[in-house]
Amino acid sequence: MPRVAFLGLGAIGTPMARHLARPEFDLAVWNRTGPKAEAMASELGVRHALTPADAARECDVVITCLPVSRNVEALLDGPDGLLATMRSGAVLVDCTSGDAATSRRMAARLAERGIGFLDAPVSGGVVGAEQGALTVMVGGDAATLERVHPVLACFGKRIVHCGAVGAGDALKAVNNALLAMHIWGTAEGLVALEKAGVKAEIALDVINTSSGRSNSSMNLFPERVLTRAFPRTFRLALLDKDVGIAADLAREHQVPSPLLQLTAELFRMAHNELGEEADHVEAAKVVERLGGAQIGGAQIGGRQS
Amino acid sequence: MPRVAFLGLGAIGTPMARHLARPEFDLAVWNRTGPKAEAMASELGVRHALTPADAARECDVVITCLPVSRNVEALLDGPDGLLATMRSGAVLVDCTSGDAATSRRMAARLAERGIGFLDAPVSGGVVGAEQGALTVMVGGDAATLERVHPVLACFGKRIVHCGAVGAGDALKAVNNALLAMHIWGTAEGLVALEKAGVKAEIALDVINTSSGRSNSSMNLFPERVLTRAFPRTFRLALLDKDVGIAADLAREHQVPSPLLQLTAELFRMAHNELGEEADHVEAAKVVERLGGAQIGGAQIGGRQS
Amino acid sequence: MPRVAFLGLGAIGTPMARHLARPEFDLAVWNRTGPKAEAMASELGVRHALTPADAARECDVVITCLPVSRNVEALLDGPDGLLATMRSGAVLVDCTSGDAATSRRMAARLAERGIGFLDAPVSGGVVGAEQGALTVMVGGDAATLERVHPVLACFGKRIVHCGAVGAGDALKAVNNALLAMHIWGTAEGLVALEKAGVKAEIALDVINTSSGRSNSSMNLFPERVLTRAFPRTFRLALLDKDVGIAADLAREHQVPSPLLQLTAELFRMAHNELGEEADHVEAAKVVERLGGAQIGGAQIGGRQS
Amino acid sequence: MPRVAFLGLGAIGTPMARHLARPEFDLAVWNRTGPKAEAMASELGVRHALTPADAARECDVVITCLPVSRNVEALLDGPDGLLATMRSGAVLVDCTSGDAATSRRMAARLAERGIGFLDAPVSGGVVGAEQGALTVMVGGDAATLERVHPVLACFGKRIVHCGAVGAGDALKAVNNALLAMHIWGTAEGLVALEKAGVKAEIALDVINTSSGRSNSSMNLFPERVLTRAFPRTFRLALLDKDVGIAADLAREHQVPSPLLQLTAELFRMAHNELGEEADHVEAAKVVERLGGAQIGGAQIGGRQS
Repeated sequence: MPRVAFLGLGAIGTPMARHLARPEFDLAVWNRTGPKAEAMASELGVRHALTPADAARECDVVITCLPVSRNVEALLDGPDGLLATMRSGAVLVDCTSGDAATSRRMAARLAERGIGFLDAPVSGGVVGAEQGALTVMVGGDAATLERVHPVLACFGKRIVHCGAVGAGDALKAVNNALLAMHIWGTAEGLVALEKAGVKAEIALDVINTSSGRSNSSMNLFPERVLTRAFPRTFRLALLDKDVGIAADLAREHQVPSPLLQLTAELFRMAHNELGEEADHVEAAKVVERLGGAQIGGAQIGGRQS
Repeated sequence: MPRVAFLGLGAIGTPMARHLARPEFDLAVWNRTGPKAEAMASELGVRHALTPADAARECDVVITCLPVSRNVEALLDGPDGLLATMRSGAVLVDCTSGDAATSRRMAARLAERGIGFLDAPVSGGVVGAEQGALTVMVGGDAATLERVHPVLACFGKRIVHCGAVGAGDALKAVNNALLAMHIWGTAEGLVALEKAGVKAEIALDVINTSSGRSNSSMNLFPERVLTRAFPRTFRLALLDKDVGIAADLAREHQVPSPLLQLTAELFRMAHNELGEEADHVEAAKVVERLGGAQIGGAQIGGRQS
Repeated sequence: MPRVAFLGLGAIGTPMARHLARPEFDLAVWNRTGPKAEAMASELGVRHALTPADAARECDVVITCLPVSRNVEALLDGPDGLLATMRSGAVLVDCTSGDAATSRRMAARLAERGIGFLDAPVSGGVVGAEQGALTVMVGGDAATLERVHPVLACFGKRIVHCGAVGAGDALKAVNNALLAMHIWGTAEGLVALEKAGVKAEIALDVINTSSGRSNSSMNLFPERVLTRAFPRTFRLALLDKDVGIAADLAREHQVPSPLLQLTAELFRMAHNELGEEADHVEAAKVVERLGGAQIGGAQIGGRQS
Repeated sequence: MPRVAFLGLGAIGTPMARHLARPEFDLAVWNRTGPKAEAMASELGVRHALTPADAARECDVVITCLPVSRNVEALLDGPDGLLATMRSGAVLVDCTSGDAATSRRMAARLAERGIGFLDAPVSGGVVGAEQGALTVMVGGDAATLERVHPVLACFGKRIVHCGAVGAGDALKAVNNALLAMHIWGTAEGLVALEKAGVKAEIALDVINTSSGRSNSSMNLFPERVLTRAFPRTFRLALLDKDVGIAADLAREHQVPSPLLQLTAELFRMAHNELGEEADHVEAAKVVERLGGAQIGGAQIGGRQS
């Protein structure tokens, strides 16, 4: 029976781990905050590991899902670290939305010990994770992916091999950078239209059957901005990090990318302004404040034309 | 029987005019290039007008569909101009993707003579025009719109009243600016991914089921960029104009809009570089050239990282 | 004895007008706020005009110095307006930092009545105005300039003929846009250096003998930012207006100008944030706040790296 | 007698090294291209080293001046590398316009062996180097700087201690990023003015006594652009690298810096377009081409307004 460890029980990690609590796996869970892992282990009848080393002992597959790559890298070393117990032939699958440089560095260190590494960030959000319907973007060796595929298939509906180590990170970052760009750009347009007398409901209704539509205009703005609900499903701080990774990727490869770079600056600003807990769609509030009008609402100050 | 005139038989105007060749209308057509109008009039059995004044004589509804607002404004004056023959109670419906300032100026002049004005740009492209399935974004008086609604319904599946005169122009411009932003931003991301070893086919496949998707990534890139087909359906020069109108709108209303403004600069550059005949999606070629890699293809020069 | 009128007794206009209170001129002054003009007229022993029409009556040269071009345009009409009394052969010299389009429109209207027009914005600030050492950037007819040269020479040390009507406006706007860009860019660099442990005093000391120096780094930052004095000598609101004019100029002439356009967006943001009374150099405070460090001082919040 | 080695005889390094050929030093020179070092050693009567290890043997001070930090890092290792012979107590002074991260990495490695490290990029150009009048921006330990000060004083007129290791790199990069921004921004403004009918000679004449002036407008544009001389004194490729370092610095420290980041993108584009040999001021040619007018000259194509 394959032994599997899952480290990182956050908003996405928790429902992912639930899908691994199956008879065919011997599962251990670990979280930085112990009580959360303990409660979950108890609920699911799986093993609660006290340290990363403990979780990974004798494991075939170790899955990590943390905020940023350097959090994963920090789990490798020390007496309680993954490297203290992971054995040759095991595979570390990192589902963090990470950066390719750190992934490559970890892969190289693990390879020295005969341990495989895949970067495997996911998309689909909390709902996708709950339904076991995530898209998994995998970077790394095809044979390694084949070995862990049955494990990933527990939470992933689409498992896409993107290229060498780092390719999954790169694709996830670019997808999220486009998400960020579309949120901000759509907000700019809708604020300008509000001030020009075109209501956002009408504007979105038309745009969403026209060429300017995007996932942002079709789903996020109607459900979250027009309603002023702004549910906190994905932190702006993490989207800021992702756009930064995409911007770094473009720079590393000498690709002039003024829109990506400017999007990175704008989300850095919004992150500074709105803090660590804000949801990513709240970036639209910064555009509203700067522009002096609320999308789908009354003018909210600012200078008049 | 209502008398209708259609002026401007371009790529979109021609199929729109065809839908008006019905028994219930007395239709006249005019085009700057006479033979085109003559051939069409002959084919459809409608009247070929030699001048705008001739087309508009005794008309109830005059529809214009030209590249830019100032082309329409130039048709108003002189012995052959629309004002020479349009009578009080008639309505000028301008389907040009125009700018609000010119629309308001025209509306004011026409109002002095008791003539109504609607700005009514359309979306849906050539296919939408052929199928009579356009979205029509109307700015102007609701009562005026009601009077001409049966005429617009011949080519428009959705006729949306957006606000006062200029509101249709504003919404069309913002929609197209988002289209432009999504094309350029998606191209930046895909070029960076190509250089990072992630193929565009895979990248688009994943993005198109993830949060970064847009009409551009779902339709334009797979159909036109990956195939290298780049059909010429909508001129980059016109999209450059539209983004400029949206950027001006934001500035006029004091809305800080760095992404919109930068998009306007990039399309101005692309227009200068690719000329008047290039299709709007060919903007991706500029991103490819600057970045040194072809989307879905081999590296095409440029510096290496 | 030439009759001269001066309209607009603001921070720059007041010292300019003082230089015209000479025996060889018959001077009248006018200001929107009457008491200011009355006090000044009384002090200098010149005529206090109650209306623009009154000021301009029988004048040879009328000089205006107002916040924006449309303020000047608004003085032309009505029973109290300049056109009610200005006579053929007179010249309107507009020292406003104006926009070329409005200047051309005014010039055309005045020309119909045989009145000359020059756009003649000035640089040199309050000190330059007090010392009669301004640079005057003149757009318009060379012969017209020659006629009014002796008047302009009272406050202008350098009177530069830049081209046709609007050329003075264009050059002033571009100069000020560069000023704005240098303030913002220097602030970005100094905030980043502060956070990297390089003190602004040292940084400016080195930059100011190196290739990155500008009027901003050599004068404004040492005198106004490091000292935290931020004297209010030139309103940010007016610089925002000037950068906008320069950005419009570039767009009107189809010149891709991403740095100018982005500078315009940033000053629009800063203007919205800091309000109408802030000095132009206070834009640096916005950069400090966004970046989380004070130039020449302690860190002031924001996220840490 | 102190033993000094100088590695890297490029445009700046060569005149720097000449100033070290003094009786009070025992000097060795090395260059990647051997003949250059040999000729120089022979001319100056100093020792020609065949390898970095040979140059550094028994040295008190080793000075490097190479295109980028990683070139210096590459000289450290291997049997011919600096670490093979540098002894405890020696100091490596890196005059490369480098990046702080690599400098810190090198400093840490050298410290393990008791070797000091200073990053010490210079400004002043070829002329400053020839005259021994460079500004040297030093990052590192103050006591270490004190020890090597007499050596640096041979080519540096101003030796400025900027902070810890990396501080010199950071300041040099920001200075050069401002240089780049001023070149590009001034070019944008001058091209727009040319198209608006204001000649660049007049524009520069006014700007250079006004608030928009910079080293670029006062020196580079009159001497190099108006004359079309474009002498090749400092490669655009290196300035691109420097702006990138400054942009990375701002990002590393979470400082929103849209102007710096956009400048980095524009110089990346210009570098891609103009190649490795172009001079930094030739970036203005890209602005001219995009805008369709030559600064100080005739219109050169592009669309008309």
